[in-house]
Amino acid sequence: EKTYRICCLPGDGIGPEIIAEGKKVLAAVGERAGVEFAFEDHLIGGAAIDACADPLPAETLDAARASDAVLLASVGGPKWDSTDPAAPRPEQGLLRIRKELGLYTNLRPVKIYDALAGASTLRPEVIRGVDMVLVRELTGGIYFGSHERFYDEGGAGVGGAAGQRAVDVMEYREYEVERIARQAFEAARKRRGKVTSVDKRNVLETSRMWREVVHRVHDEQYPDVELEDLLVDNTAMQLINRPADFDVVVTENMFGDILSDEAAQITGSLGMLASASLGDGVSLFEPSAGSAPDIAGQGIANPLAQILSAAMLLTYALDMGEQAAWIEDAVARVLDEGWRTRDIADEGTPADHILGTAEMGDRVVAAL
Amino acid sequence: EKTYRICCLPGDGIGPEIIAEGKKVLAAVGERAGVEFAFEDHLIGGAAIDACADPLPAETLDAARASDAVLLASVGGPKWDSTDPAAPRPEQGLLRIRKELGLYTNLRPVKIYDALAGASTLRPEVIRGVDMVLVRELTGGIYFGSHERFYDEGGAGVGGAAGQRAVDVMEYREYEVERIARQAFEAARKRRGKVTSVDKRNVLETSRMWREVVHRVHDEQYPDVELEDLLVDNTAMQLINRPADFDVVVTENMFGDILSDEAAQITGSLGMLASASLGDGVSLFEPSAGSAPDIAGQGIANPLAQILSAAMLLTYALDMGEQAAWIEDAVARVLDEGWRTRDIADEGTPADHILGTAEMGDRVVAAL
Ligand SMILES: CC(C)[C@H](C(=O)O)[C@@H](O)C(=O)O
Ligand SMILES: CC(C)[C@H](C(=O)O)[C@@H](O)C(=O)O
Repeated sequence: EKTYRICCLPGDGIGPEIIAEGKKVLAAVGERAGVEFAFEDHLIGGAAIDACADPLPAETLDAARASDAVLLASVGGPKWDSTDPAAPRPEQGLLRIRKELGLYTNLRPVKIYDALAGASTLRPEVIRGVDMVLVRELTGGIYFGSHERFYDEGGAGVGGAAGQRAVDVMEYREYEVERIARQAFEAARKRRGKVTSVDKRNVLETSRMWREVVHRVHDEQYPDVELEDLLVDNTAMQLINRPADFDVVVTENMFGDILSDEAAQITGSLGMLASASLGDGVSLFEPSAGSAPDIAGQGIANPLAQILSAAMLLTYALDMGEQAAWIEDAVARVLDEGWRTRDIADEGTPADHILGTAEMGDRVVAAL
Repeated sequence: EKTYRICCLPGDGIGPEIIAEGKKVLAAVGERAGVEFAFEDHLIGGAAIDACADPLPAETLDAARASDAVLLASVGGPKWDSTDPAAPRPEQGLLRIRKELGLYTNLRPVKIYDALAGASTLRPEVIRGVDMVLVRELTGGIYFGSHERFYDEGGAGVGGAAGQRAVDVMEYREYEVERIARQAFEAARKRRGKVTSVDKRNVLETSRMWREVVHRVHDEQYPDVELEDLLVDNTAMQLINRPADFDVVVTENMFGDILSDEAAQITGSLGMLASASLGDGVSLFEPSAGSAPDIAGQGIANPLAQILSAAMLLTYALDMGEQAAWIEDAVARVLDEGWRTRDIADEGTPADHILGTAEMGDRVVAAL
């Protein structure tokens, strides 16, 4: 019997609660598929800061590298919000593990579940059929350029008085754009064959290079895929105006951060959205939503995004697409049967159909 | 009789058509108020490139400086889209006039007209009561840092091969943040007293400085205003989730570009939204929407955003708030009477209530 090592990073807030359900579902799938998942928990984020003052301990990184895949829950919370710039911050653990594992591709599928269409603040006829994937470059751009603060004796203060100056550098190399473009075109070939490449080429040099490289990769290797360019400001509009028109949307790190959250919100059911971060080695899978510290420890968080990120893990890390579909079908069935966690319930949901975190995990296992 | 010199920049696409209606309405207001507006047309954008290969001719800039206010329509169009990086681009005219006139504050009111709520892709109960103003920093940040392209012999290509590298620099000085923060707090005092400051301080140094400075200005000078911080990715979500909660939203140039377009789209009636760009000297007023080259020359463009930008001109440049209210009331009345341009009409609009550009201008004049 084959054994896969899954490095689990519960992190903060609702993290430990939802990751337990991810493991539960994976274990059930393993039993049925005749493979074993060996889960190992490690620290990241605020939990790691509390334990050893480091949001990404070396031990965690080593364990991630030695695993077959990483399942992350979420990091951060007000406890670690500090005004001291030298204090370690939970998100640094996330940014560092992305960089250390070379996870340059972030895939965020954004899909409407018919049963949950009512949760969206958009009109039902506008979100009907929304099914896109955001492909966000994850290890370059302004996230990983230099970040500096200066104190200028003259010039930075009012009217040229002394004052501070802050500088962030956005940088892209040609090969970084090439490889993320290929990921987007490959994804499009498995979907509806259309890529929207987002940039701000009327202002940024990185965007002008982005557009040139994306078109070169397209023309040379993927002429069969339809390619359109859209400015980032216009994209922010069109995601609201005609979300169902998008298939694959590819963009750089910062634009991807903003647009993928916007696209996620359009569905109204953020607690359903998973993401995969891929590179040339070990991959990482996590829910799109955050650590929700306000409801942590209450057993009411929605574990479905975590469970669906476990499905993405099967597809992308272990080549077990068939088994991933079992999970996705089970989740759809549970929703169709009317089961909800609090965040995706509405007035029409009977009280006895509102489940806690573990109960929802159990339902998915039962539906497998 | 007092005479005000209004520098008019029709620009490209529908620009000449809609600016004519802005002038028409201003002239009518002037007659009633006993002041005169002297309009002078000058070239900008693609029209200026065609005439003299420069998107902002010196003559235009001099005229703007010598005026009491600048009324701009819109710039750009596919005619001037070029793959040649050295070719002048229409938007450069816009970016340069902002910088040359020191227009560091961009105010974009985003408001739902009850009569047009049906045009939004958001549910009516979500957009009801939306009434915010985006305060975008307009002359700093990554827009005006250096933009460079390098060719590296080693490192930038795949696997360390030769390749290109592009770099954009985002920079803010303390006084730039101070003055835009003051604009936001001043605006909030005249409204509902709440400012949302948007940044990405978990990643950017400019954002960390931004947050510190905004809070210092708040604590020292505007403790009466309510201040909340929101990360840019979360803001992109909350604008869709609870748009009516926002009063004043202040942010840096690039985030402001993206979020103000997102906020505008939420209303569904982009053709209604005006903006003011203010500095320490002459100010500039323009519609939020673009040059719409696809419908240029047909006499069907919506002139209301241009007319409302003329109202903003009265308020901000000429201290004629009372007369500005005449225009705003007239526009609301015309809409309440059921008059529409094509872009804001719906199935319920009788064909004889769909007006052309000039007819709509005439209706507003009649309603004054
Ligand atoms: C926590 C933060 C640094 C992170 C990011 O900006 O990438 C988060 O918003 C995300 O999208 O995963
Ligand atoms: C045309 C472009 C350079 C400009 C900007 O990005 O500022 C436009 O999008 C705007 O918002 O006025």
